[in-house]
Amino acid sequence: MASSSSLTLSQALVARAISHHGCNPSWDRVSLSTLTIPTFSGLKSSSSSPTSSSSKPSRLPRRRANSSRPVRAAAVETLDKTTDTSLVEKSINTIRFLAIDAVEKANSGHPGLPMGCAPIGHILYDEVMKYNPKNPYWFNRDRFVLSAGHGCMLQYALLHLAGYDSVQEEDLKNFRQWGSKTPGHPENFETPGVEVTTGPLGQGIANAVGLALAEKHLAARYNKPDNEIVDHYTYAILGDGCQMEGIANEACSLAGHWGLGKLIAFYDDNHISIDGDTEIAFTESVDTRFEGLGWHVIWVKNGNTGYDDIRAAIKEAKAVKDKPTLIKVTTTIGYGSPNKANSYSVHGSALGAKEVDATRKNLGWPYEPFHVPEDVKKHWSHHVAAGAAFEAEWNAKFAEYEKKYKEEAAELKSIISGELPAGWEKALPTYTPESPADATRNLSQQNLNALAPVLPGLLGGSADLASSNMTLLKMFGDFQKDTPEERNVRFGVREHGMGAICNGIALHSPGLIPYCATFFVFTDYMRAAIRISALSESRVIYVMTHDSIGLGEDGPTHQPIEHLASFRAMPNILMLRPADGNETAGAYKVAILNRKRPSILALSRQKLSQLAGTSIEGVEKGGYTVSDNSSGNKPDVILIGTGSELEIAAKAAEELRKEGKAVRVVSFVSWELFDEQSDAYKESVLPEAVTARVSIEAGSTFGWEKIVGSKGKSIGIDRFGASAPAGKIYKEFGLTAEAVVAAAKQVS
Amino acid sequence: MASSSSLTLSQALVARAISHHGCNPSWDRVSLSTLTIPTFSGLKSSSSSPTSSSSKPSRLPRRRANSSRPVRAAAVETLDKTTDTSLVEKSINTIRFLAIDAVEKANSGHPGLPMGCAPIGHILYDEVMKYNPKNPYWFNRDRFVLSAGHGCMLQYALLHLAGYDSVQEEDLKNFRQWGSKTPGHPENFETPGVEVTTGPLGQGIANAVGLALAEKHLAARYNKPDNEIVDHYTYAILGDGCQMEGIANEACSLAGHWGLGKLIAFYDDNHISIDGDTEIAFTESVDTRFEGLGWHVIWVKNGNTGYDDIRAAIKEAKAVKDKPTLIKVTTTIGYGSPNKANSYSVHGSALGAKEVDATRKNLGWPYEPFHVPEDVKKHWSHHVAAGAAFEAEWNAKFAEYEKKYKEEAAELKSIISGELPAGWEKALPTYTPESPADATRNLSQQNLNALAPVLPGLLGGSADLASSNMTLLKMFGDFQKDTPEERNVRFGVREHGMGAICNGIALHSPGLIPYCATFFVFTDYMRAAIRISALSESRVIYVMTHDSIGLGEDGPTHQPIEHLASFRAMPNILMLRPADGNETAGAYKVAILNRKRPSILALSRQKLSQLAGTSIEGVEKGGYTVSDNSSGNKPDVILIGTGSELEIAAKAAEELRKEGKAVRVVSFVSWELFDEQSDAYKESVLPEAVTARVSIEAGSTFGWEKIVGSKGKSIGIDRFGASAPAGKIYKEFGLTAEAVVAAAKQVS
Repeated sequence: MASSSSLTLSQALVARAISHHGCNPSWDRVSLSTLTIPTFSGLKSSSSSPTSSSSKPSRLPRRRANSSRPVRAAAVETLDKTTDTSLVEKSINTIRFLAIDAVEKANSGHPGLPMGCAPIGHILYDEVMKYNPKNPYWFNRDRFVLSAGHGCMLQYALLHLAGYDSVQEEDLKNFRQWGSKTPGHPENFETPGVEVTTGPLGQGIANAVGLALAEKHLAARYNKPDNEIVDHYTYAILGDGCQMEGIANEACSLAGHWGLGKLIAFYDDNHISIDGDTEIAFTESVDTRFEGLGWHVIWVKNGNTGYDDIRAAIKEAKAVKDKPTLIKVTTTIGYGSPNKANSYSVHGSALGAKEVDATRKNLGWPYEPFHVPEDVKKHWSHHVAAGAAFEAEWNAKFAEYEKKYKEEAAELKSIISGELPAGWEKALPTYTPESPADATRNLSQQNLNALAPVLPGLLGGSADLASSNMTLLKMFGDFQKDTPEERNVRFGVREHGMGAICNGIALHSPGLIPYCATFFVFTDYMRAAIRISALSESRVIYVMTHDSIGLGEDGPTHQPIEHLASFRAMPNILMLRPADGNETAGAYKVAILNRKRPSILALSRQKLSQLAGTSIEGVEKGGYTVSDNSSGNKPDVILIGTGSELEIAAKAAEELRKEGKAVRVVSFVSWELFDEQSDAYKESVLPEAVTARVSIEAGSTFGWEKIVGSKGKSIGIDRFGASAPAGKIYKEFGLTAEAVVAAAKQVS
Repeated sequence: MASSSSLTLSQALVARAISHHGCNPSWDRVSLSTLTIPTFSGLKSSSSSPTSSSSKPSRLPRRRANSSRPVRAAAVETLDKTTDTSLVEKSINTIRFLAIDAVEKANSGHPGLPMGCAPIGHILYDEVMKYNPKNPYWFNRDRFVLSAGHGCMLQYALLHLAGYDSVQEEDLKNFRQWGSKTPGHPENFETPGVEVTTGPLGQGIANAVGLALAEKHLAARYNKPDNEIVDHYTYAILGDGCQMEGIANEACSLAGHWGLGKLIAFYDDNHISIDGDTEIAFTESVDTRFEGLGWHVIWVKNGNTGYDDIRAAIKEAKAVKDKPTLIKVTTTIGYGSPNKANSYSVHGSALGAKEVDATRKNLGWPYEPFHVPEDVKKHWSHHVAAGAAFEAEWNAKFAEYEKKYKEEAAELKSIISGELPAGWEKALPTYTPESPADATRNLSQQNLNALAPVLPGLLGGSADLASSNMTLLKMFGDFQKDTPEERNVRFGVREHGMGAICNGIALHSPGLIPYCATFFVFTDYMRAAIRISALSESRVIYVMTHDSIGLGEDGPTHQPIEHLASFRAMPNILMLRPADGNETAGAYKVAILNRKRPSILALSRQKLSQLAGTSIEGVEKGGYTVSDNSSGNKPDVILIGTGSELEIAAKAAEELRKEGKAVRVVSFVSWELFDEQSDAYKESVLPEAVTARVSIEAGSTFGWEKIVGSKGKSIGIDRFGASAPAGKIYKEFGLTAEAVVAAAKQVS
């Protein structure tokens, strides 16, 4: 027994049940009646431990090596032995060797983290987390994010042991192979049980902040004094690499600001990154920084064998309800490898046959590769029943909830299922050419405010530009620490964190529809998160205003040029540039209907006319004819515009028609959607025989050859912008109806 | 006199001289003999002050409103009155009204920051900084960076008062107008006196870290015990917005790690950002965070009128030599405006005629717009002579240096001038088809190691991937706090900060050539900094390895797809994708010769053959014929490849030639350079008449229509990648010689 324990057995049992399942008595009943509760003694001093530091957790050390504050023991939770600690250790070593063997077989991967973090992984998945392996999408599950995604064999091993169908023994053997469920970094769209897509460092912890935000928000909206229907934790493991990334600081600053008390992050403090000891580039005090960010910080000094310390830290973290907790766990990377532990060589390469053997000897592991010892297997097998019980219990709870709170239940159901309320699209505003001219950023706000009442999962905000991006939902207040039920999220000037947090929100529940906003040019700050939206099939709506030189005086640092092209080249994302009110409504319709694709809406700062011929249906096709005075699908010239330049194309068409030309004007609001249309439709808009084509867009002409062909002409901007009133820049840069008319005459 | 002063006059004079000019006695002589030293009394309590907080600076408050640590007075530096404090105040108000008037006339801009930070600005430019207004490029000047670039009228007003030719009264009146020297955000390439391009938040403070790194590095390399030829400070002003950005945390973590003692950053703590009070999104303790990052932190509570406190803080900051200093200056945004101060409405909009009048009354400012009172003008006029003296003194010092340290002086001169050593390009390695196959990342390292000895300004490193990016210079050690003379920079996993730091290094001196590295896909993390490289004409070399699905098992999170296209669309940047050794050498040659353009080198992880026909000269043309068995410029088909796929194109050509076809193989290493060639040259490579063209590139096909035309075919990847061995993915994705042969047959 750990000497620091002062709890009686009965106290400990209750504490343990609470720690396992929150405060709801029904969970205690489930856990105590149907589950075999693993118990554990105090610290086991492993003879093979490469470190021998104190086992007591301490708080808020000022510096790693030189803690100036008194080390105090956290209350350590201990129970009578009913499961031998040796089984816990065996389970932990099973995780280690599954990782070692898989990386070895693939001859590729990162064994170091799984070997070091196996104790955290075991405790989380075997002792702490609520989940149902046979339904990885059970709504009220605890979420786990491996922010240090390169260590994914840790997660695959845990999913395998826990009984997830997605990771069978064969999958472990196919680690990092073509078509496997066990890719080189965790991918939510490949492997059920993986919540988000990680690997690019820092993204995962920011996703975790989004998951925890979603829980706090939904709990605030739907929980009742007699029925806490939303109630789960979000756990994350992040390493030194994640900690160095700015995105992590952004997201963690917000987590502290929002007081996300059910977010518990383990910082795998192993002092090693790819280039070697973190001393060469990372000597800040992470503890002090997180204290500054408003987190509760705990240090577990011996993460290798201090199982009780890890357990105690989790208990302490759960007791702190108004702050997220960072548990700094000092571990040895590659723990157990006699020659490679604690070195960068174990970070990202297979150990090699010789060192695998040596590690087997060192940890006393006599088994064949990929073998899960019977007692370990048997022990973990209870999670299938336990998980089913968790879900059944929750389903019963939801049935009660539904009886008493019909309306809320229906809403929550739609958020859980992702099913859109019938007729939601009727809320989309429509416009006529007589509607007042307006900036598409304002029209966007009309759409957001029209949709928020009918789409309960719509929530979001801006990176400190709400009044410029026009993203406030007028009927709601701010999502804040003490008003988490509100739906306007204030991200501060943290674009990258904002994007990744929205990915977390989107992947929390199929019916959550996060939107986020900044100036279009600042997608550069958040591009890595946007790419993860696209890859991980997260329906995030990126409301990107000030979408061209049309923003005027702020100048070239604020004027996007290459951004449209750069997103058109990105897979699985919709780049939409609506021209007026109807097209903005169409863009929102498309964005909401594309459940597995993020959308970027490029919106103008400047006023634009409401054009004749634009429509929601047109937008759904990506490109469509707005006006045409030709016949037989044989216009003399086709003028193609997007967004704010469609108006210019329309004006040029008027001029040309006055001169007797047959002119078609095409709006090209989304290249991706147009590409997906039938050949016949495409031919009806852009007939192959008509090579006289002129495009106009206030952005790079890169890529437009595909649309206008080698005989056409693209009017655009292939230089940086300038600081001046917008009209002046348009004129100086030649983005005028006159220029379109002249080009049309050249090509036709 | 401030009551906290305990210095005698003579002590104070010496302290002041040191504070002004560092410890070198020659500077004291200059300053004391040729300059009118402005002096000042203690605090003046302005009746118009909207705040009345304590004027004493205190250190390290835990929370803004509730400092739990004792407030202590820093030593306040005071001098006899020879210039009335009222003149200082008048100068400060001049700065305020130049900003107010310029924003008002433009009806666009950000008056709030200049009004709040005018005291800091005055003290820096009038009392503290060493610069020569008539030679903004004088090497040893103190650098100033307005990281909160939207407040640029502060800087323009200061440059105007200090006598820089770049900002005349007319320029102030043309603020934010077409063709002016006073664009909406500071641009180094438009306005001499502006060191870097800021506006996108957080970039500036990271640039400042780069400038300070450059100073520390050059000082360590070239200073001698008897001649400290490199010796200047770097100052920055950053606001709440910068503080929220992750890039700022990344760069400041490195600044703390490196112990950049001559970096002094003022945090304009005004509690207001665009969306309102920072309480809605930014409640972290910045002080505590910076303490964690290893900075010295000082708090000046009254930044509005506590001039002596600001001075004392600067003195204290200079005394701390092993840490950068953050001076948190609590100011009132829009100070002086009776109705708009301390509100977001003064952040980013003109005050409006009525409020301008009210502010004039409130601050007792009877003058016409843009008027600089005579006494203020006269006072500032001494900076022209003082600056000339600073430079002359330094020139004399350099002459002495040159006599004693000829070799070092020649090197330093080339760094100062940017002139490349004669024959440097002879160091570039060359290869023959018989040279061993190798990954271009390794060939890149051969180039870096060949060039470093002949290019004294070449320095750089990787974001914790040195051993993967192959960026270590083998003859040098690590640039670290105690070894700043070394040239391998360890950036940690901080891509965004890395890019912006490199911009600062590049803009410190024309002969500094920073390179930085990560996986190509992670350009997404640093894209905003790369764009600033392009815009601000910074010659940064981006060494981007693992440039395609060819990296294999790490999978789609790590495999770039759209990145080549996304940079080809960006203005003023060279996107280079070399195919083998000769082309890698060519890419380095081009990158180094392009003084006003950054370059991105996309390099393979996997081994590539050394190809026949590749050359440095070819790379310089962007696209060129590598092999050809046609005659009369009439090949049957042209196969076009870049990087790792040029080899595949070459293999396909062999196959096709065996079948009797006349095939040209073209390497398309840089689209930008090819675009700049003459029409005749382009025709010689890609004759218009030959429409049978096939391109192959392991990336998005977006944009390739321009090269292959509507009758050609592009083989590429328009989906996300996959986790598997590289060869397998190439095959599954159809990136094979067989596919090229088949496509060639289709099109020809």
